[in-house]
Amino acid sequence: MAKINDNYLKLKAGYLFPEIGRRVREFSAANPEARIIRLGIGDVTQPLPPAIIKAFHEAVDDLATSERFAGYGPEQGYEWLANAVIEKSYNKLGVQLKTSEIFISDGSKCDCANILDIFAMDNVIAIGDPVYPVYNDTNVMIGRTGEADEKGYYKGIVYMPCTEANGFIPALPTEKVDIIYLCFPNNPTGTVASKAELKKWVDYALANDAVIFFDAAYEAFITDPSIPHSIYEIEGAKKCAIEFRSFSKTAGFTGVRCGLVVVPEEVEGTTATGERYSFNKLWLRRTTTKFNGASYPVQRAAAAVYSDEGWKQTSEVIDYYMENARIIREGLAAAGLTVYGGVNAPYIWLKTPGGMSSWDFFDKLLTEANVVGTPGSGFGPSGEGFFRLSAFGDRNNVIEAVERIKKNLK
Amino acid sequence: MAKINDNYLKLKAGYLFPEIGRRVREFSAANPEARIIRLGIGDVTQPLPPAIIKAFHEAVDDLATSERFAGYGPEQGYEWLANAVIEKSYNKLGVQLKTSEIFISDGSKCDCANILDIFAMDNVIAIGDPVYPVYNDTNVMIGRTGEADEKGYYKGIVYMPCTEANGFIPALPTEKVDIIYLCFPNNPTGTVASKAELKKWVDYALANDAVIFFDAAYEAFITDPSIPHSIYEIEGAKKCAIEFRSFSKTAGFTGVRCGLVVVPEEVEGTTATGERYSFNKLWLRRTTTKFNGASYPVQRAAAAVYSDEGWKQTSEVIDYYMENARIIREGLAAAGLTVYGGVNAPYIWLKTPGGMSSWDFFDKLLTEANVVGTPGSGFGPSGEGFFRLSAFGDRNNVIEAVERIKKNLK
Repeated sequence: MAKINDNYLKLKAGYLFPEIGRRVREFSAANPEARIIRLGIGDVTQPLPPAIIKAFHEAVDDLATSERFAGYGPEQGYEWLANAVIEKSYNKLGVQLKTSEIFISDGSKCDCANILDIFAMDNVIAIGDPVYPVYNDTNVMIGRTGEADEKGYYKGIVYMPCTEANGFIPALPTEKVDIIYLCFPNNPTGTVASKAELKKWVDYALANDAVIFFDAAYEAFITDPSIPHSIYEIEGAKKCAIEFRSFSKTAGFTGVRCGLVVVPEEVEGTTATGERYSFNKLWLRRTTTKFNGASYPVQRAAAAVYSDEGWKQTSEVIDYYMENARIIREGLAAAGLTVYGGVNAPYIWLKTPGGMSSWDFFDKLLTEANVVGTPGSGFGPSGEGFFRLSAFGDRNNVIEAVERIKKNLK
Repeated sequence: MAKINDNYLKLKAGYLFPEIGRRVREFSAANPEARIIRLGIGDVTQPLPPAIIKAFHEAVDDLATSERFAGYGPEQGYEWLANAVIEKSYNKLGVQLKTSEIFISDGSKCDCANILDIFAMDNVIAIGDPVYPVYNDTNVMIGRTGEADEKGYYKGIVYMPCTEANGFIPALPTEKVDIIYLCFPNNPTGTVASKAELKKWVDYALANDAVIFFDAAYEAFITDPSIPHSIYEIEGAKKCAIEFRSFSKTAGFTGVRCGLVVVPEEVEGTTATGERYSFNKLWLRRTTTKFNGASYPVQRAAAAVYSDEGWKQTSEVIDYYMENARIIREGLAAAGLTVYGGVNAPYIWLKTPGGMSSWDFFDKLLTEANVVGTPGSGFGPSGEGFFRLSAFGDRNNVIEAVERIKKNLK
C-alpha cells in the first residue's frame, strides 16, 4: 500500500505566489477591462541585454553542429562558468574560491530547497519572520517540523522576528540552532546588513558549529560600497557558510533559469558517530546523482553576464530597476506611507495604512487600484500589516502604479 | 552542531558515470595519442534538427524584446507544451490525459530522484537488478535503506534480478511492495515489454495498492508496433502508475535539459490516518515550492519536436541511432559475442567473453581497443559479467569501435 509523505499535509495553504496568481486571475476574469499592474511576484520585465542574447544564440548554433554539439555536461556546471563567477564576482570582493566550490544550477529556489537533502533531520533550523516562504515550507515538507500553530509557526523551527523595532534585522537566537538562513539584501523587507552585522552571525555559527545558508540573490542591487555582497567577505565564513546566488534578478534570468551555490570545502558537519565530514563532498554526490546540469546554452548565456559588454549592459538594467525602486519609495513616502527597503535592494516594504491586514490591503489595491503586490503576512506572521512591492516592473507601469496607489489612498 | 545526512555514507562508490569518467581521463592523460571512442555514458552525438534549432532561436529572440519577454513561467511547465505532448505523443496511443497531469521538468534524472519526496519513508520499494543507478542511490540517500551487503544489495530494497534465464524481465515480487520501478525499453539491458507483460505489473499494482514508476525514457526507439510506448496503454494504469519521459535521447536534449512526468489524478496513496490522497496534488505542491520551471527557450525547443517538421527530423535521428544499434549488435554477434537488446532500444547488452568481470572487460576495451562502454556490474550485482554499449555514437565511430572490438577479441 503506497503511503504519502504526510508532512505535506501540515502545509497551511497553497504556496504564496500561486495563491496571489489565483486571486488575480479571478479578479481579471470578472473585470476583463481592468489594466492590472503587477508589482507582486518579483518577476523581471526588461529584455535580456544584447551581449547575453548573442552568447545564447551562439550556444544554440553550437547544438546545430557535430563539432561543437554539447551533450551531458558536468552535473555541477561547466568550469568556464565557475571560473567567470570567481574571477568577476568574487575576486573583486577579495574572496578566493576554487571552481570545485561552485555548483551551477537551474535556479536558486531549487538550490535553497535541495540543500536540505544533505543535512540530518534532527538539525534545528532558524529562519527569519517574515521570510522567503521556500525556506519554511521545504523544511515542513522534508519532515523537520511538527504542525503549525494558529499563528502559522511550525513546531520545531526557531523563528527570528524581523520587525520595525529591530530594523528588520533579527537578534541572535537564544536557543542553540544548527542551521541559520540569512538573506541580505533581504526578501521581503529590502533590509541590508553591514559587515559588522554579518560578523555577529559568522561568530555565532563558528562558536556553535552551525551552518549559515546565505541567500545573496539580490547582491547585485547593492550600491553602497560599505555593504558586503557576499558572506565570504567576513573572516571565518568559509568555515561555516553556504552561499546561494542567482542570475534571475541580477541578469533577467527568471525564465531562463540559472543559479549557483558556493559550498566551500572547509564547511563541515558531524556524522552520527561524531566525525567531521565535508558538505562540499556531500553536495557533489547529491548533484551528480540527482541533477544533470543546467542547460548548456543557458550556462553560455550566464557566462556572458561576466563579459565586459555583458556586465555593463546588465548593470544598466539593474540601475533601471533601482530607479524604479526610488520612484516607488519616494512616491509612497510622499503619499504618507511608511516605507522601508528600496535602497540597495529591489523590494519596498511598506506598512499598510490604518493597521489594515496585509491580505485586505492586497485585495484593496487589486480591486480599487488594479495593482498587485505581495501581502507581508504571506512571508510569515511578523509580516502582518506590511506589504511588498517589487521594483522589477516596466518604468511606465511603475509610475502609473504609484500614481494609482497615491490616488487610492487619498 | 550541524549534522550531516548519514545515509550518504552508506553509498558504496562514486556514481557510476563519474567513475567511468575518472578512469577514462586517467587513461587518456597517460596515453594522449589514443583516439578513444565513447559508447559508454549513453550521451547523444548528433546535432539538434533544424526545426528545433529554429524554435530555440526564436524563443531566445523573444527574450530580447519587451513584448515577448518570458519571465517566470508556470513551475509545472507551459500548457502549450503539455498539450503538444498529449496530442502528438499520447493521443495516438489511445491515451487521454489532462494538461494538469503533465509536469514539464529539466530532465528525467531529476524527476526520478525527486518523485521520492512525496512518498512516506516506510514504503517498500522494488527495483530491477541491474538497474539505472539513480533509482537505487536516491533511495539510499533519502534514508529508505540500511547498509549494503558485500554484494551491493541495500537492506530494505527488494531487488528483482533480471537475468539471461528470465529474459531480463523480472518476476513479480513475492513479498508485498509499495513502489515498483519499471523501465522499458530497458536501461541497461535493452529489453522491451509486451502489453501482456505490463498488464501483469499493472494488475499486481492494483491488487496491492502499489504505485509503478514507469520510466519510458527510451520509448521513441520502439519500432515494433505491438510494443507499448506508455504504461497507460494498459487498462487501469492511470490508477496506479506515474510515467517519466525525457527529451534527452528522443530529441538530443542531453545538454539542453527537458523531461516530463505524468501523474494522473487518479493515482492515490494513503495518509497515516488511512485516507486516500492524490499524488498529483502532492507533486504539484512539490513542484511549485521546490522548482521554478524548465527554461522558457528550452520548452519552446521541446515543443518544436512535436511540429510536423520537427517530428520528421527527430525520427530521422532516431533511425540513425537504431542503425548504429543494428551495426553493433550484428557486428558483435558475428564476432561470437552473446548480445541482447539493440532492437526497439538503443542499448546493447553483451555477455563478457570467457566469464570476464564487467570492470575487467571495461579496462580491457579501454586500454586495448580504446573503446569506452559501461560495466554491467555498475548497474547492480546481476549485471556482473555483462557490458552495455550505447548506440548514440557517431556512425563512423560506431563502425570503427565494432571493428576494434572484433579485432581485440580475435
